Amino acid sequence: MTQTAKTTRDDGQLTLRDVVAVLERRYPLDTAQSWDRVGLVAGDLDQPISRIHLAVDPTLAVIEEARAAGADLIITHHPLLLRGIHSVATTSAKGASVTELIVNDIALYCAHTNADVADPGVGQALAAACGLSETQALEVTEGQELGRVGDLPDALPLAEFARRLHEHLPATASGIRVAGPADGTVRRIAVLGGAGDGAFDAVRASGADVYVTADLRHHPALEAREEAAVAGGTPYLIDAGHFASESLWLPGLAQGLVAELGAAAARLDVHVSQVRTDPWDFVLGATGPGASGPEQHPESEPHTNDAGDHA
Amino acid sequence: MTQTAKTTRDDGQLTLRDVVAVLERRYPLDTAQSWDRVGLVAGDLDQPISRIHLAVDPTLAVIEEARAAGADLIITHHPLLLRGIHSVATTSAKGASVTELIVNDIALYCAHTNADVADPGVGQALAAACGLSETQALEVTEGQELGRVGDLPDALPLAEFARRLHEHLPATASGIRVAGPADGTVRRIAVLGGAGDGAFDAVRASGADVYVTADLRHHPALEAREEAAVAGGTPYLIDAGHFASESLWLPGLAQGLVAELGAAAARLDVHVSQVRTDPWDFVLGATGPGASGPEQHPESEPHTNDAGDHA
Amino acid sequence: MTQTAKTTRDDGQLTLRDVVAVLERRYPLDTAQSWDRVGLVAGDLDQPISRIHLAVDPTLAVIEEARAAGADLIITHHPLLLRGIHSVATTSAKGASVTELIVNDIALYCAHTNADVADPGVGQALAAACGLSETQALEVTEGQELGRVGDLPDALPLAEFARRLHEHLPATASGIRVAGPADGTVRRIAVLGGAGDGAFDAVRASGADVYVTADLRHHPALEAREEAAVAGGTPYLIDAGHFASESLWLPGLAQGLVAELGAAAARLDVHVSQVRTDPWDFVLGATGPGASGPEQHPESEPHTNDAGDHA
Amino acid sequence: MTQTAKTTRDDGQLTLRDVVAVLERRYPLDTAQSWDRVGLVAGDLDQPISRIHLAVDPTLAVIEEARAAGADLIITHHPLLLRGIHSVATTSAKGASVTELIVNDIALYCAHTNADVADPGVGQALAAACGLSETQALEVTEGQELGRVGDLPDALPLAEFARRLHEHLPATASGIRVAGPADGTVRRIAVLGGAGDGAFDAVRASGADVYVTADLRHHPALEAREEAAVAGGTPYLIDAGHFASESLWLPGLAQGLVAELGAAAARLDVHVSQVRTDPWDFVLGATGPGASGPEQHPESEPHTNDAGDHA
Amino acid sequence: MTQTAKTTRDDGQLTLRDVVAVLERRYPLDTAQSWDRVGLVAGDLDQPISRIHLAVDPTLAVIEEARAAGADLIITHHPLLLRGIHSVATTSAKGASVTELIVNDIALYCAHTNADVADPGVGQALAAACGLSETQALEVTEGQELGRVGDLPDALPLAEFARRLHEHLPATASGIRVAGPADGTVRRIAVLGGAGDGAFDAVRASGADVYVTADLRHHPALEAREEAAVAGGTPYLIDAGHFASESLWLPGLAQGLVAELGAAAARLDVHVSQVRTDPWDFVLGATGPGASGPEQHPESEPHTNDAGDHA
Amino acid sequence: MTQTAKTTRDDGQLTLRDVVAVLERRYPLDTAQSWDRVGLVAGDLDQPISRIHLAVDPTLAVIEEARAAGADLIITHHPLLLRGIHSVATTSAKGASVTELIVNDIALYCAHTNADVADPGVGQALAAACGLSETQALEVTEGQELGRVGDLPDALPLAEFARRLHEHLPATASGIRVAGPADGTVRRIAVLGGAGDGAFDAVRASGADVYVTADLRHHPALEAREEAAVAGGTPYLIDAGHFASESLWLPGLAQGLVAELGAAAARLDVHVSQVRTDPWDFVLGATGPGASGPEQHPESEPHTNDAGDHA
Repeated sequence: MTQTAKTTRDDGQLTLRDVVAVLERRYPLDTAQSWDRVGLVAGDLDQPISRIHLAVDPTLAVIEEARAAGADLIITHHPLLLRGIHSVATTSAKGASVTELIVNDIALYCAHTNADVADPGVGQALAAACGLSETQALEVTEGQELGRVGDLPDALPLAEFARRLHEHLPATASGIRVAGPADGTVRRIAVLGGAGDGAFDAVRASGADVYVTADLRHHPALEAREEAAVAGGTPYLIDAGHFASESLWLPGLAQGLVAELGAAAARLDVHVSQVRTDPWDFVLGATGPGASGPEQHPESEPHTNDAGDHA
Repeated sequence: MTQTAKTTRDDGQLTLRDVVAVLERRYPLDTAQSWDRVGLVAGDLDQPISRIHLAVDPTLAVIEEARAAGADLIITHHPLLLRGIHSVATTSAKGASVTELIVNDIALYCAHTNADVADPGVGQALAAACGLSETQALEVTEGQELGRVGDLPDALPLAEFARRLHEHLPATASGIRVAGPADGTVRRIAVLGGAGDGAFDAVRASGADVYVTADLRHHPALEAREEAAVAGGTPYLIDAGHFASESLWLPGLAQGLVAELGAAAARLDVHVSQVRTDPWDFVLGATGPGASGPEQHPESEPHTNDAGDHA
Repeated sequence: MTQTAKTTRDDGQLTLRDVVAVLERRYPLDTAQSWDRVGLVAGDLDQPISRIHLAVDPTLAVIEEARAAGADLIITHHPLLLRGIHSVATTSAKGASVTELIVNDIALYCAHTNADVADPGVGQALAAACGLSETQALEVTEGQELGRVGDLPDALPLAEFARRLHEHLPATASGIRVAGPADGTVRRIAVLGGAGDGAFDAVRASGADVYVTADLRHHPALEAREEAAVAGGTPYLIDAGHFASESLWLPGLAQGLVAELGAAAARLDVHVSQVRTDPWDFVLGATGPGASGPEQHPESEPHTNDAGDHA
Repeated sequence: MTQTAKTTRDDGQLTLRDVVAVLERRYPLDTAQSWDRVGLVAGDLDQPISRIHLAVDPTLAVIEEARAAGADLIITHHPLLLRGIHSVATTSAKGASVTELIVNDIALYCAHTNADVADPGVGQALAAACGLSETQALEVTEGQELGRVGDLPDALPLAEFARRLHEHLPATASGIRVAGPADGTVRRIAVLGGAGDGAFDAVRASGADVYVTADLRHHPALEAREEAAVAGGTPYLIDAGHFASESLWLPGLAQGLVAELGAAAARLDVHVSQVRTDPWDFVLGATGPGASGPEQHPESEPHTNDAGDHA
Repeated sequence: MTQTAKTTRDDGQLTLRDVVAVLERRYPLDTAQSWDRVGLVAGDLDQPISRIHLAVDPTLAVIEEARAAGADLIITHHPLLLRGIHSVATTSAKGASVTELIVNDIALYCAHTNADVADPGVGQALAAACGLSETQALEVTEGQELGRVGDLPDALPLAEFARRLHEHLPATASGIRVAGPADGTVRRIAVLGGAGDGAFDAVRASGADVYVTADLRHHPALEAREEAAVAGGTPYLIDAGHFASESLWLPGLAQGLVAELGAAAARLDVHVSQVRTDPWDFVLGATGPGASGPEQHPESEPHTNDAGDHA
Repeated sequence: MTQTAKTTRDDGQLTLRDVVAVLERRYPLDTAQSWDRVGLVAGDLDQPISRIHLAVDPTLAVIEEARAAGADLIITHHPLLLRGIHSVATTSAKGASVTELIVNDIALYCAHTNADVADPGVGQALAAACGLSETQALEVTEGQELGRVGDLPDALPLAEFARRLHEHLPATASGIRVAGPADGTVRRIAVLGGAGDGAFDAVRASGADVYVTADLRHHPALEAREEAAVAGGTPYLIDAGHFASESLWLPGLAQGLVAELGAAAARLDVHVSQVRTDPWDFVLGATGPGASGPEQHPESEPHTNDAGDHA
């Protein structure tokens, strides 16, 4: 059900209807993946909007931050209700979140896979943070371009590339994880914000030297490194963090909203949330690229992924 | 198809048949989950066995390490061929691994979910590393007890508990990740080696203060923390690493094998692999419990998972 | 997740937690069918409860009636959110309903198939309205007894039986529909509140002369009449209306709640909604049993369902 | 397997093959929905045809009526064997029907969803009875246009529109049910013969003021009325009866058959069955639009569907 | 729907109801596999029965043979309508068969997997033809014992065993096929009438030297021979023909029917059909065990299934 | 993953990579059916190739034959690993086959449904053996033409046609089976190598007089003969043997390989295996077309498939 954009009210007060119209032009609902649940999650199209908060996840802390700041609309990347709910009782976190939003008159809007594929969008924000300017689609799913792939102006050592990317990401307790030799050379870069387990075939087909994504689990990551071992060593892997890799999109969204609303945005505040919704609070025992690796395997066969990499 | 155990050959030479008989007593094939693929993956039951290597994953580096050491049998936790293969050509990593094993006359045996539930087994080794002595099952799946839950002799601060656990784990580049306040109190501990996304309901039902597992992804971990926020703050989460949490089982397996083979083990060497098969090589920007958190959210509402936790 | 019943608050104020405890004793959650969604739909367990409204359906009109009457809890038979929802925006009826409930601090609780099978419950209330005292289960589904079957003290003509039943039902625009000859004799009665298309095999096996249920569609009803034609003419059918047949349960629920809450109910009002949630507003052209039928088929073969029935 | 049309026999006797050829030109088999079962159900293509009976349903009474009248072919809208049968023993109604047809040498032909979408066809006959001349498709399913939507020459009160429609329908015991205020204004009309539960999205998208269909059940109808309540009150609903709404197609079929068979029809009788196959025989307690409604809800909020409607 | 057995009519005339009652005692309907379709396929329970034909398949030729002989009931092993039918028009073979049965007043009854598992039944008749007296179940499926396994009094060469079996089978054009060396020794025999592709695991577990069944296709048979090659050479295979292997059951059924009907059978004829319903009419180029094999592979490795076997 | 063809090595030695390139030009991987598993099954693309063996099935006997002959590549029609395997231990035939291949450095390549549809390919080789020159596709599945249909220069009696076909086929113990009268006339021929149960609808639509295929089971073959009985008697059936019908493709493949490799084939031997992988070793009791049939049914109704055929 697309929303028909209307002009703001006679009194010049921006309504939720106005903001939704802009969002659905930027992120058309029919560009979302079929399993996704995007669009307006809570609120009334006629309610006035004066202050918007932008965040990756609609957590209770984000809702509380928005309430304390007087926001009347939260726009997030992740859907609150991806799986349908059958109760809004406060005994569950989903129910408590819905109740907090309604009681405090805060609307919620979600732009997820339709924001991933938009131009500008989540994929392009991550590509830009990697230093890529011109990019192509990593893969096409349900007719939409997911992920980006492109070439750096100059080749870099893997560790140096990772360091530069890390500078563009918000600090999180878990940092970013890298698989590959610190001095391996990378130039062709594939990126996919969020969970990237499912795109390894596309990454290999792209010829990328390194794959920047998040939420990689042990088995897919290890199997990708094994396939790389029989194919010359690449692609290397960088897990940049699910929250961190997708938060890069928020500042551009803030600017875009203000620009597209034009004069109507004069009385509108748009803020990016300061809550880091990465679930991890601290890490023990992680080692950087300069550290001597945790063990030194004596042989340095071309297909070992654990020898020499830390030297 | 269970293997009938036979005595060793007349000349006293241990055969693969002998070792398989011991393994299937320790880890009966019918205690594996229905989706799992356990048992003998490569080799001939009549081949002689003189040197056994134990590892979590049957990677190319592990096979090379075993070959270089003269091993004729590798026993791993993870199956090489969980998904069926249709080719053993060396163009794929799975094909290259199978070919390396056969060309070098190295047998491969896998004990996976049947080792998870064994006594002693993977779950109990992780529970012991957490300081638990008496434990109960975390959940029962397909009639088998998966995971353990038990109480520490004394309550500990979360960070201190994590530090003690970390000392028992093999060093990996990624270390261990913790969600929860450093000074939160924990006494009741739930553990599940390997990927733990699917057991949150059982963890909550167990009343655990902290859940020690691995391979937690953003959405399940964040939703678990949100549910904890409306339920008093616990359970906290520790992602101890998939490889690290399951490697704890290997030393006990080595001892058990030698003990059960008895006199037949006199001419047998059993080694735990020195290859760390965690796929990550280095980490940038991770922060420990003493560090000032990446941001300070001004409110300290009880349901924020990012405020005060790092103080 | 069953709710643990607690005593009322120290100040004697009844809370939602208290009422939920009583409801879950009367209608245990695990006696609902697996596809059903029962229990607390909206509200906070600690909110005070002073006035309860009972209804078959949680429509917007019922919520408005409850709000106007100052109710803080609605208990309905039908779930509001049987299918999961992904948005509570007021653009949809479900979202508007949820928003109305939360904004007005009205909790919602649903007892559906667990109330159908309870003793006393929906099936027994309908059986009683039919004049049955001792009954057996019509069928057993997922271990629960659904529907009732029993014998009248004396046989009655079908039209007379229907007239007596009609007197017990709330008036609706659509009335009740009867298939069978007005003067057919009935004594053994099968009843199933709500939509009864799926239970014809059980009805035939029960030997019932007439099946009292609702929401029968053309094809199942016609096929049931055809099967009856080759089996002697019975069972006849009565479609008593979905709302009407299930509303019979509400008065007993009101009495039971007050009785079970005991002294705590002293300051509690319990009302049955006056809103008829049958969706139909008027009917044209319906004909009663005394009317000359719409056409007279000349032959009166035993298997015609349209001859003689209207004479 | 389409039948190739052939000319009538040398002796001028019309055969089943001839009639089938005409029917498959009017209602091509490949325009039926994929789940449907249309075409020749019983008979031999070479059997002579002198008398044809037309009916909505192939019930035992219809077969008996046809036999008594000496018919050798019955053409119905509804398939006798939509679900496949595994026995034709006379212990079941389907078996008894098949046996009656074969023993009496009566062929049976069914045109169902392919007749719904034909021009002229079932949808257009219902649209014409509603007073619509020019119409568009209500929805397109599997490439076929299902249902019609169009505008009346002038707006009418809902009760008056229903009265006019009722005059075009065959009398049945259940009459027609209407949801909406008697004085609500309707001009844009959506129609779908037979069971219409599944087309509410298309009806809303069409902008129809009233939806004329049949076999609406409590939950879909009530949810449609709830959605209407948040969208201005329309579409209203008319359940015109499954049999009644589809019987409108039969007279046009009779004329069309005679016209297309031309000279060959000279010795052919075509009759529309007088058996009403609506399964209901009488109704108690239904109330018309002039009646005072069964209850008067004091508030008349715009979203109540039960207040004012009966005044 | 089980049929209640009644006594024969007052005039002593046997009815279909009487015969069905006996058949359902011998072959209870609920011992058939869930996918099967057994019981009465055509006929009226009250029709008189004077002559019964027994056959493996209800083909048009069998029906014609029965009609010519004046039979009023055919009992077959294979269902006529295993897949449900949607038409009985004579344009299809199934429709023509049903029409022929009804027009000629011939009832049809099928006892399929419930006859396979009966005692006496199809499996036991085949076991007896193999020379087995005491047998156990080959496997248990849906709670029923399918197939038999037992030991010959003395071991025999495979070719001699096949010759003796062949003498018990009705002659068919295709004969019986044997896989294994003519002089291989067999003593333990597994049998499964009809198509046996799916029971190889059970056959191997039974320790059978030879598996007598039918309808074995290239891939399953070849894979079974390959597995046998790595397991010592057995089980050998005999494809005795689907029709031939199951026809052995008919004479016992004829005797049993007469015996169980007792005095009521005095005026009853029961005949076994003389129509061979094996679909094949002649064979070219088949070679017997004495023939020099079609080619001689020089090596005689233990796992070749084509060397030495024909010497 | 298609293999990029490269020129032979500098020393002129043909490698597996060279042969694979030729095979994937002849039989593109994407012309295989989606369920199929074709391409390289074992081997290393850089291994030298001097001797190639061609066979229908990769049995242990074929591998042993190839090993004894010094072959380093086997090309087969049937996949070794159509179902994925989870173990290559020698306890199973599949594991033993893989192990034998790898230990003996023999590569394995499979061209299955992509060879069926190729031009020249399996379907065309069988059509040629039937005496057909110009043919069309029998059916189109997943965009590929499966099977062939064409007309003989002159009509032939069925038995004569079968005799001529038999002369082109390799001798097997089971010979070829024919359903239909020996003197029936055939001119239009449909062929489908391998198992042909699934193509009867296409065969009937093609108007073929006889269908030459293999692996026909009792029920599909009998039902096809029954449908033929109501449609004039044809199509007749010939089961030419799965192995035999597909082996016809091997000589053309041998010639094509040598021709396409050109000068590089100078040092290459290509042999067609002499192992007959039809699983059957001998047959008892088969009867040819001249033999008096196993029984003579007295009536010779047009729809009996067993009368007159053997005269």
